[in-house]
Amino acid sequence: MSDPYRLYYWPSIQGRGEFVRLILENAGAAYVDVARRPKSEGGGVEALFGLLREEPIFAVPALVAGDLVIAQSALICSFLGRRHGLAPEGEAGRLHADQLQLTIADVVDEAHDTHHPLGAGLYYEDQREAAAIRGRAFAGERIGKLLGFFERALARGGGGALVGEAISFVDISLMQLLLGLEYAFPRGFARATEKTPKILALRDRVAARPRLAAYLASPRRIPFNEDGIFRRYPELDLE
Amino acid sequence: MSDPYRLYYWPSIQGRGEFVRLILENAGAAYVDVARRPKSEGGGVEALFGLLREEPIFAVPALVAGDLVIAQSALICSFLGRRHGLAPEGEAGRLHADQLQLTIADVVDEAHDTHHPLGAGLYYEDQREAAAIRGRAFAGERIGKLLGFFERALARGGGGALVGEAISFVDISLMQLLLGLEYAFPRGFARATEKTPKILALRDRVAARPRLAAYLASPRRIPFNEDGIFRRYPELDLE
Repeated sequence: MSDPYRLYYWPSIQGRGEFVRLILENAGAAYVDVARRPKSEGGGVEALFGLLREEPIFAVPALVAGDLVIAQSALICSFLGRRHGLAPEGEAGRLHADQLQLTIADVVDEAHDTHHPLGAGLYYEDQREAAAIRGRAFAGERIGKLLGFFERALARGGGGALVGEAISFVDISLMQLLLGLEYAFPRGFARATEKTPKILALRDRVAARPRLAAYLASPRRIPFNEDGIFRRYPELDLE
Repeated sequence: MSDPYRLYYWPSIQGRGEFVRLILENAGAAYVDVARRPKSEGGGVEALFGLLREEPIFAVPALVAGDLVIAQSALICSFLGRRHGLAPEGEAGRLHADQLQLTIADVVDEAHDTHHPLGAGLYYEDQREAAAIRGRAFAGERIGKLLGFFERALARGGGGALVGEAISFVDISLMQLLLGLEYAFPRGFARATEKTPKILALRDRVAARPRLAAYLASPRRIPFNEDGIFRRYPELDLE
């Protein structure tokens, strides 16, 4: 494929699109982050609305790869992983990787819903009390259960990678999940990860891969912020 | 494969496992619904807990197919669809079907969260007020937006099936989603579907397929109930 990939996602947040950006960056793939281009060059959020009008996809992120238009972050990551040598070989490994990626996506949804428990259509300010209940339950118990699951899944395979021997798209996604949870729930994360040394070590190993380390230190990496999925609202974290 | 599939899911609800049951039934595949077998024969919910202890999966439904253990309902449906002639051919069609299936799974999550907005760890009775806010927003606006998306996706392909010409696992899943939403939110569903005749017609066509019609009328089909995902709590529906 000679054309660069075209990634459609909100231009000012990491969000679900960041899982895709990280796979593209690790692969060294040429891509255009469409909405971060100037409006005069076909970018801006108008490009997202245009795609959503024209294609049968419900939400971004979406990736245009030649004639293919793919939405759903877990599906995009799996697609790119297989294309760029970042996915396990064989049916069992591929299914296992896809399953873990979907579980990571579920955790991302849960993290999002801590600040919007009553619905994405209401402002955070209008659901702070509900958010505090859900957030503290998440930071206090749920994080530990979820991260404990990934720790066991990693330990089962020997500790080098979640599926098989080599780093795959799932390990990169787990890294991002851990960075996000640590940003949003520093106290809950610190307590939960006392019992999960293996996934922390994996996170650091993945983040040190040359292309990812370069990306994470670059201006292309949008900082975490309170418009994204992982928001640092202290009232949602453990006390 | 000579061994029957083994489906692991809660024995008293449709839930996310029902999407898998429907694909198995439509395929005429031999399967054991493990937890619905007597405990003395290795069934019961103990079988679910055993699988979750032994395998690197976070939750059920899970399908055991020979040596493969697959979790995440959308992934299982896609896997079975491809195996049993219920999936589009070609990369673009397969990706499109997987994307729509994941979007259906997202709607299922939203429907679940209407009755548990503050977290699955709390009883419904302890979050009724929050649930009423989220439920009415879902039944009042969100259903219409979501079903409108599927109506447009279906219309785009000519109206016969969501992807390509033939019924695939996605159409069967959409049928179940529509049945569930109609059960849980009869008033919101009635209003929203005034504008979506094509997906209603597709639902009825799918439900009339001989194997599915026989299944839906059989005792194997667990009735909707208020322990499942789609719960008829009138206070969450439109007034």
